[in-house]
Amino acid sequence: MTRARIADFLDPSSGSRNARLFRGIHYIVIGGGIVALALATVPWVMETYGLFVQVMQGATLMLCALEYVLHILVAPSVAPSKSASVAGAYWHWAASPLGIIDLLAVAPMAIVLASAAGTRAASAVGIFWLIKFARYSHGIAVLSRVIPSVGGWLFNVFKAFLIVLFGAATLAYIFEGEAQPEAFGSIPSALWWAVVTLTTTGYGDVTPTTVGGRILAGTVMICGIAVFALWAGILATGFAEETRRYNFLRTWDLVAKVPLFKTIGAGTIAEVARLLRPREVPAGAVIMRRGESGDCMYFIVSGEVEIRLEPNPVRLGAGDFFGEIALISDSPRTATAVADMDSQLLILDIADFRGLMARQPDLVKVIETEAVRRLGIFKGEAPKASL
Amino acid sequence: MTRARIADFLDPSSGSRNARLFRGIHYIVIGGGIVALALATVPWVMETYGLFVQVMQGATLMLCALEYVLHILVAPSVAPSKSASVAGAYWHWAASPLGIIDLLAVAPMAIVLASAAGTRAASAVGIFWLIKFARYSHGIAVLSRVIPSVGGWLFNVFKAFLIVLFGAATLAYIFEGEAQPEAFGSIPSALWWAVVTLTTTGYGDVTPTTVGGRILAGTVMICGIAVFALWAGILATGFAEETRRYNFLRTWDLVAKVPLFKTIGAGTIAEVARLLRPREVPAGAVIMRRGESGDCMYFIVSGEVEIRLEPNPVRLGAGDFFGEIALISDSPRTATAVADMDSQLLILDIADFRGLMARQPDLVKVIETEAVRRLGIFKGEAPKASL
Amino acid sequence: MTRARIADFLDPSSGSRNARLFRGIHYIVIGGGIVALALATVPWVMETYGLFVQVMQGATLMLCALEYVLHILVAPSVAPSKSASVAGAYWHWAASPLGIIDLLAVAPMAIVLASAAGTRAASAVGIFWLIKFARYSHGIAVLSRVIPSVGGWLFNVFKAFLIVLFGAATLAYIFEGEAQPEAFGSIPSALWWAVVTLTTTGYGDVTPTTVGGRILAGTVMICGIAVFALWAGILATGFAEETRRYNFLRTWDLVAKVPLFKTIGAGTIAEVARLLRPREVPAGAVIMRRGESGDCMYFIVSGEVEIRLEPNPVRLGAGDFFGEIALISDSPRTATAVADMDSQLLILDIADFRGLMARQPDLVKVIETEAVRRLGIFKGEAPKASL
Amino acid sequence: MTRARIADFLDPSSGSRNARLFRGIHYIVIGGGIVALALATVPWVMETYGLFVQVMQGATLMLCALEYVLHILVAPSVAPSKSASVAGAYWHWAASPLGIIDLLAVAPMAIVLASAAGTRAASAVGIFWLIKFARYSHGIAVLSRVIPSVGGWLFNVFKAFLIVLFGAATLAYIFEGEAQPEAFGSIPSALWWAVVTLTTTGYGDVTPTTVGGRILAGTVMICGIAVFALWAGILATGFAEETRRYNFLRTWDLVAKVPLFKTIGAGTIAEVARLLRPREVPAGAVIMRRGESGDCMYFIVSGEVEIRLEPNPVRLGAGDFFGEIALISDSPRTATAVADMDSQLLILDIADFRGLMARQPDLVKVIETEAVRRLGIFKGEAPKASL
Repeated sequence: MTRARIADFLDPSSGSRNARLFRGIHYIVIGGGIVALALATVPWVMETYGLFVQVMQGATLMLCALEYVLHILVAPSVAPSKSASVAGAYWHWAASPLGIIDLLAVAPMAIVLASAAGTRAASAVGIFWLIKFARYSHGIAVLSRVIPSVGGWLFNVFKAFLIVLFGAATLAYIFEGEAQPEAFGSIPSALWWAVVTLTTTGYGDVTPTTVGGRILAGTVMICGIAVFALWAGILATGFAEETRRYNFLRTWDLVAKVPLFKTIGAGTIAEVARLLRPREVPAGAVIMRRGESGDCMYFIVSGEVEIRLEPNPVRLGAGDFFGEIALISDSPRTATAVADMDSQLLILDIADFRGLMARQPDLVKVIETEAVRRLGIFKGEAPKASL
Repeated sequence: MTRARIADFLDPSSGSRNARLFRGIHYIVIGGGIVALALATVPWVMETYGLFVQVMQGATLMLCALEYVLHILVAPSVAPSKSASVAGAYWHWAASPLGIIDLLAVAPMAIVLASAAGTRAASAVGIFWLIKFARYSHGIAVLSRVIPSVGGWLFNVFKAFLIVLFGAATLAYIFEGEAQPEAFGSIPSALWWAVVTLTTTGYGDVTPTTVGGRILAGTVMICGIAVFALWAGILATGFAEETRRYNFLRTWDLVAKVPLFKTIGAGTIAEVARLLRPREVPAGAVIMRRGESGDCMYFIVSGEVEIRLEPNPVRLGAGDFFGEIALISDSPRTATAVADMDSQLLILDIADFRGLMARQPDLVKVIETEAVRRLGIFKGEAPKASL
Repeated sequence: MTRARIADFLDPSSGSRNARLFRGIHYIVIGGGIVALALATVPWVMETYGLFVQVMQGATLMLCALEYVLHILVAPSVAPSKSASVAGAYWHWAASPLGIIDLLAVAPMAIVLASAAGTRAASAVGIFWLIKFARYSHGIAVLSRVIPSVGGWLFNVFKAFLIVLFGAATLAYIFEGEAQPEAFGSIPSALWWAVVTLTTTGYGDVTPTTVGGRILAGTVMICGIAVFALWAGILATGFAEETRRYNFLRTWDLVAKVPLFKTIGAGTIAEVARLLRPREVPAGAVIMRRGESGDCMYFIVSGEVEIRLEPNPVRLGAGDFFGEIALISDSPRTATAVADMDSQLLILDIADFRGLMARQPDLVKVIETEAVRRLGIFKGEAPKASL
Repeated sequence: MTRARIADFLDPSSGSRNARLFRGIHYIVIGGGIVALALATVPWVMETYGLFVQVMQGATLMLCALEYVLHILVAPSVAPSKSASVAGAYWHWAASPLGIIDLLAVAPMAIVLASAAGTRAASAVGIFWLIKFARYSHGIAVLSRVIPSVGGWLFNVFKAFLIVLFGAATLAYIFEGEAQPEAFGSIPSALWWAVVTLTTTGYGDVTPTTVGGRILAGTVMICGIAVFALWAGILATGFAEETRRYNFLRTWDLVAKVPLFKTIGAGTIAEVARLLRPREVPAGAVIMRRGESGDCMYFIVSGEVEIRLEPNPVRLGAGDFFGEIALISDSPRTATAVADMDSQLLILDIADFRGLMARQPDLVKVIETEAVRRLGIFKGEAPKASL
């Protein structure tokens, strides 16, 4: 295997078969290792299945070590600057956050397991495996972009949260301190009650008993809901914006590869890219079925799709589209479509197709002309590029 | 009853009277069966009302069986491919998810009730009735489309949730393990505390007592709120998009049937369809009342509406509109409108009507011209098609 | 007082001084009555302040009775159909939902208090006062429009909630039934645990102890968060739409009264109305202060505003605008503005003003021309209509 | 130090180095004072670290006093009206809400600490320090604008909340009053249960035991979720609007300073301002790195940026832009950019850049022309103003 191929399957954003297989193994083994660490703290499990648990921990450690070696190997080919030396490329990677995470997943655990330092130490060091577990998750990376984009606001709400928290604890100390010296005898101990109440968790291990304390508690609960609601609003706003951006960028690159869209001008691509959704289909997957109702059409970015027409099936390749007849004639699918190889498609929903009629009449006309031609062929003689 | 009529009332998206009646019976009987299964676990209820509970269970089982037979009967007429044989159509349906749900609602319960296997077995098998209960719910079907459309993001938040959960349990085990060996003595038992805290449920059966454990608990609660908020944001975004799509498609088909809108061009229909809301009114229903303030106008897609003008009432049919005078002259309703038969209407709200003035002046002019004509008639001699 | 004036101050949407005064009295007295009913259930309060509580209850009952009589009196003048008889108008009102609410606030309580039926009966009947309390709340009326507009979706989520609830109770009965026969011995008793857990309330009076029960509980909590989040998303979407509609309609009527906007055509009013926010200022209120930074401008719909310029103050009336200089020249307010009488203003925010520059250049030009003229006067000789 | 410089660093919205330093000290000292007040309530802490706690309290009090004196000093230079006397300016500030907050942070605590009035009094007076802590927080100020903008709706939901609360308490009193006279024997005591349940806090210190009470509790929990969800929806809507407004205004002022945007006309600035995000970079910060993938471009509002090209680095100043080559050619960054001094940048994201292509082709052409010129230089001979 060449260095470039290894680099490909170690790349979290790669969609190749090898990369997905590697990530699958990664999730299962590291996940198993985390579960094994948890089980190692239960005496009766260790007595009965101790060997199995230890093997699982060892396997996880070995995978982490293997990943670390592979990342060293490919460091030169993913280094930002081509001119750097191999050693320079390695140090650049090793000092990056990802390199440090990978190291922390190996070294401390190796020491702990080798020194038989007890389950408590192994558990503590196992926290690094939790971070390692999410290391190749592209989705969590995108999600974590939401936090900084609204971080300033979240931080301000958090400041307000802290102020309310201290205020609540102070008042609870004043109101309840004498009635319940155990739980409210000092502000730090009243803080425990305040955080349990303000987050509406409500353990109930400490509850106010005086009238003043109960009115305070009710107010704190309502403030808690408001803080919570504000937080939800901020995250919802940030998430909606971030996913819109992410989907737009992901689709844009694909749209630019379809010749049909190239003709409509760089400007309008921006609008079309907002409407299309990408979908990857593995070889052999059925994309649409004859007789089903059709609520979208498909553009092929790469790969090959077979349209199963009765006498002679038709093969469509990159740049072709299909499924538009059901949208235009409001009839069920007239043929079944199956992916001949791993294919990348773009999906246009019926609602957006109809919206496009108003804003992009030229594009819709091209699609309709092709549909009419296909329908003629379809109902007429030899189908050549039907559906 | 023909096969097509049975197929119609078994169709969840059908709005016919028979279909609604059938669904009503379905909900009441299956709902009754579920309640009966629950009551069967209470000894004193069984002693007193045992027979009634058993009859209710039997009735539910019989309805499920009847539905299964009906679905077999109509399988050929709803099969996607017309050319298939009757047996082929049946097997195609029986192997589909819906066919399996319908079978699971009949066969296991029949065996359990026949073998008198006890309430615990009946309850377990009763889970299938819960699924069966929702089987014809069109709304839940639409809602369940939201999950896959944002599924990737929900899954990523769930991964983050699991990582925080394991991390919290590990730290709680380290901080609290010695102080409370019963509840925090191993990571799996600490997981129970972690999930109760992270979801802000807070049973209070297990609470941290050390300072470290309490600071951890406060952090976990705040993380819980953040996970929750992110989840809410994702579902809210997905729901808003899905309902917009659903409403647009539902309205589009109706709009295309109104001649007035056909003239404005396929492109602009997309815009108008976004503003109209469909409403079904049963025969005899009062749509608007003379003297009330009017905040919308109506287009008739199908059915017949009687406008109760004083000397001679007027009948309006498919393609007509009414209620526009109150919008244009800002006056109360000048007449009462009653549906003569089951009718399908499209409603244009006053806010959208005013918005349309800017973007679709031609359409508004047609409506205003008709309103002026009607007002003339209304104040003048014989009303012919007034209001 | 004429019948029309009484009708005005009984109208929840009226903004007149009398109507606001009447609503203030209504809220205080009915609110006091509700508190009195609550206090009447506390023995020591009744021993000490019994008379005061009874007087408060009596006063509330008398206000409710008075309101009922007033509504009878004004029934003819608010009846939808002018031709109806006085008795007909009364019965029409008495049989309407509002009429029934008003009756229920008087009759049952009168019977209970007269018969000295005990605090429990008075409390039960006091529920009607809670409804009566919200009777003139315009805001709650608008909010309650949100529920029906998204009602179908809420109902579907509720159905899903019920299915999860019954499923959770059934499984808890199976898993925990033997370990805790008291709490999980039947499905109906397990339902109590299920609802407390699914809403993440978590009393902790009943908690699962088996491993299966705890895994189930964790799943139920996560489902609870999802149901909750979906609910929040639906209500947020519905609320955003409803308030947009409400604000648009409220502003539209005011915009149409300002001559400046009339000239820009009915179509563009829709756009401007979306940007303006209405504000009522009482006589004597300071609208803006000299030297403050200015982030909005004002249009006068009705009333009179005095601009306090140094040598001679200027009076502006309906149709005039002011405050635009700070927006155009990015300088602090050049004068203080005080309302001479109760005035109705429309506020244009600086952000929207700048947005308007692109979309409504003609309108902005009119405002700028006036600003330049005023600045000339302002810096030059006699100010006539400055600021 | 001149009065104007002091006024600058006391201004919460100032971004100067001194102002940020001052705010940093403010947060640390006041935060320390609040923690010291909390620790003063713990006997063993006072025994061991009593001196340290008292010093911290004293330091906080002295900072508050110092701030008060500084605000008096600068009062004339921030007074709205230049003509006022120094004493008038001081009184104007002292009587403003901020002046009162500043006074309350000094005077009561000075009295309490001087009179050694005990920890309870010091804690009560410490509430003012919590308010003082947030005094310079620009973010909380913006957030607090959200509350009034949706305040009417929040208040209506709160009214509905109160009505449900009283209704729930009344019904609980009726259902559970006899079974649990301790907790539900009067409506006021039932209110405690109602608020704990309606906010889904669920302490569990009081739980219903009758069937009626439990059904009521389930209903109250569901209502609680609905109130919560409505609240979240309102705050989310308000927050989204307020931040959009805030960001727009903040960016607008910066955009107007870039000559490139001036040429595109005042109208279109509104659109561009909606897309750009401001960012401040301190001297020495690396803005972009050679070899990284580029997802945005930068406009310089003020300051100086060095583009580190191999033979001769290039200096760009106010009005220049850089980073556009990566967007146009979809290649990694071709050079590293470092801020030479504190600089104010505007960032245009790649998604928005592509969206601009459709709506502002002229602006994009200017950027592309410059990029082509730079690429020519870059690949050709002496780089003069590359990247």
